[in-house]
Amino acid sequence: MSAPVASFDERMMDLALAEARKGRTAPNPHVGAVIVQGGEVVGVGHHERAGEAHAEVVAMRAAGDRARRATLYCTLEPCNHHGRTAPCTDAILAAGIARVVVGCVDPAKHGPTSGAARLREAGVEVVLGVREAQAREVIEDFACLVVKKRPLVILKAAVTLDGRIASRTGDSKWITGEDARREAHRLRDRADAVMVGVGTVLADDPRLDVRMVEGRDPIRVVLDTHLRTPESAKLVAHGSSRPTWIVHGPDAPNERRDALRRDGVVLIEAPLEGETVDVAWTLAELGRRDVMRLLAEGGGRVHGALLDRGLADRAEIFVAPVVLGDPDARPLAAMHDPPMQIASAFQLADLEIDRLGRDVRFRGRVTRGPREA
Amino acid sequence: MSAPVASFDERMMDLALAEARKGRTAPNPHVGAVIVQGGEVVGVGHHERAGEAHAEVVAMRAAGDRARRATLYCTLEPCNHHGRTAPCTDAILAAGIARVVVGCVDPAKHGPTSGAARLREAGVEVVLGVREAQAREVIEDFACLVVKKRPLVILKAAVTLDGRIASRTGDSKWITGEDARREAHRLRDRADAVMVGVGTVLADDPRLDVRMVEGRDPIRVVLDTHLRTPESAKLVAHGSSRPTWIVHGPDAPNERRDALRRDGVVLIEAPLEGETVDVAWTLAELGRRDVMRLLAEGGGRVHGALLDRGLADRAEIFVAPVVLGDPDARPLAAMHDPPMQIASAFQLADLEIDRLGRDVRFRGRVTRGPREA
Repeated sequence: MSAPVASFDERMMDLALAEARKGRTAPNPHVGAVIVQGGEVVGVGHHERAGEAHAEVVAMRAAGDRARRATLYCTLEPCNHHGRTAPCTDAILAAGIARVVVGCVDPAKHGPTSGAARLREAGVEVVLGVREAQAREVIEDFACLVVKKRPLVILKAAVTLDGRIASRTGDSKWITGEDARREAHRLRDRADAVMVGVGTVLADDPRLDVRMVEGRDPIRVVLDTHLRTPESAKLVAHGSSRPTWIVHGPDAPNERRDALRRDGVVLIEAPLEGETVDVAWTLAELGRRDVMRLLAEGGGRVHGALLDRGLADRAEIFVAPVVLGDPDARPLAAMHDPPMQIASAFQLADLEIDRLGRDVRFRGRVTRGPREA
Repeated sequence: MSAPVASFDERMMDLALAEARKGRTAPNPHVGAVIVQGGEVVGVGHHERAGEAHAEVVAMRAAGDRARRATLYCTLEPCNHHGRTAPCTDAILAAGIARVVVGCVDPAKHGPTSGAARLREAGVEVVLGVREAQAREVIEDFACLVVKKRPLVILKAAVTLDGRIASRTGDSKWITGEDARREAHRLRDRADAVMVGVGTVLADDPRLDVRMVEGRDPIRVVLDTHLRTPESAKLVAHGSSRPTWIVHGPDAPNERRDALRRDGVVLIEAPLEGETVDVAWTLAELGRRDVMRLLAEGGGRVHGALLDRGLADRAEIFVAPVVLGDPDARPLAAMHDPPMQIASAFQLADLEIDRLGRDVRFRGRVTRGPREA
């Protein structure tokens, strides 16, 4: 069966979705908008970052007078409340838009009257749910922050065919090829923050910035209960437009705190859960600090802790045609309480597989328990 | 760049190659033949099994009189010696074939004059090396047996994204889905023998026969130093058209030998290397017993032993979108002397990747050391 031919509304919504993905909007949702007048696109726009104009307003400014009696395609239901900007519904009515096509409704409740209801009451035709699944995916991080009060967590790793992220000596350069590594940098660009454990800092000394592609560095977060991160670590010493945050426990030595603070690191004191910083508390704290999309780049203990607590939402696993053959090489994930049966293991749902040079990316939602096939 | 259009000779050779793959010919090579007269295919044939007619002869019988002045396409150089059958060169000359197109030359040296030379001397036009790479691959198991005096070893496993062939309790049902499992049965059909360690027998109690597809059961081989395989094991108790061979050490208890022999198992006493049966000796012994293509289905210790000694030629790894997250779950391969660096790890060359339902198969030649990308 071939895919059904997209309708005009769907094609316009695809344009709006592509726009939406351009913004770096945390803690606001990613939104894109397209305005069509007489079958012609007369304005496009996206929400660029929190505090700046919403996508609808950007698109209407581009369209100018041609917004009158036009159709507005909007990936997310237009807002009807005063936040950092005025309600988009007011601007839409003022511009004389005749029809509004919406990808998905807003998961955040701001008041008694939704944007769609307000527009309909004012006589605007409103169509809801065009490309709804895609529109939901574009705001899945925002929805997670609103509903679960923590960032969307994406578990990312490059592994060998025997599931190793490094040899037993910590060597991981390079498991995957250039195409896969470039994609990994794209993921960083799209994330608000990237998180690793101190073990990864000590073994790899990563920069965790965006190279190989154009983009914005994420905030770098290190889980480091005892503040073992050296001042010479690239995460501390190397310049970046975004800060490094180190999450430590209550017993971290004061001289380490002073030394790292002197180097410009932001320290976050977290409660312990067992021997290490509480990961669930940490995610909630990152959410309070407007991190909406978090890339967990390992190592195995960080991934394991997230899986143990059901805190991994998505996974992006790059598999390379390499075999280490070493049971003591570093594993993808080391849980405290792992599944004993395949049937109760983690599965990737909504699976997408693509080949990147010699490597294969598996991406999907992390679910647990029995699967279809 | 798109693939070049195949010439007529190449297309006919592809037909012959497809024929060649139908036989189960150990210790003879897989060979296919096609006869073309006036642009029309007038005969096809393959070598079915050792002792039966060669592909050229089968094709010429099918063509009958129309073989006269025809072109014969042959995946392997026709033989020029008396083995279990008469030389194919004699039959080709008797049939009046005018032109012979050959995939690849015979890696086995049987005498001073090769088939191609003999035919040329007799005035037949001979073209060598059409679809040579594919023709070589079809006989790679035969070439391995001739040159290395052991079967071609194909490492096969179904693994999770974290490289596990089973949970720590030994559960492996089902890591991969039905499409991948069906392909695994196809691999068994194409193998002369399938080999596992006794750990796999005790954990999984596999039958190692061909189900899910039409095909021929392979010989089942168990590496079992101390003869721990129980008589109730399916490999012993379940009927199959092919025998089960158990390779054991010199110290295996006599009562275990008697019990297993009574149940029809063929016992092979192997020398030890360290604590377990010598794998290199075992492969040479399987070669002496006409096993040309061996599928190594694990577990991790068998795979590790093969990798340790450089005895894995190819790999077929089926990766499922499943994560166990358990460093103690069973690994794909447990070597004694694993690589410490990614750059010195095993790589798959001539890599082929295909998707099978939710799973991905990685197949290729096992090589070691630095790779291109």
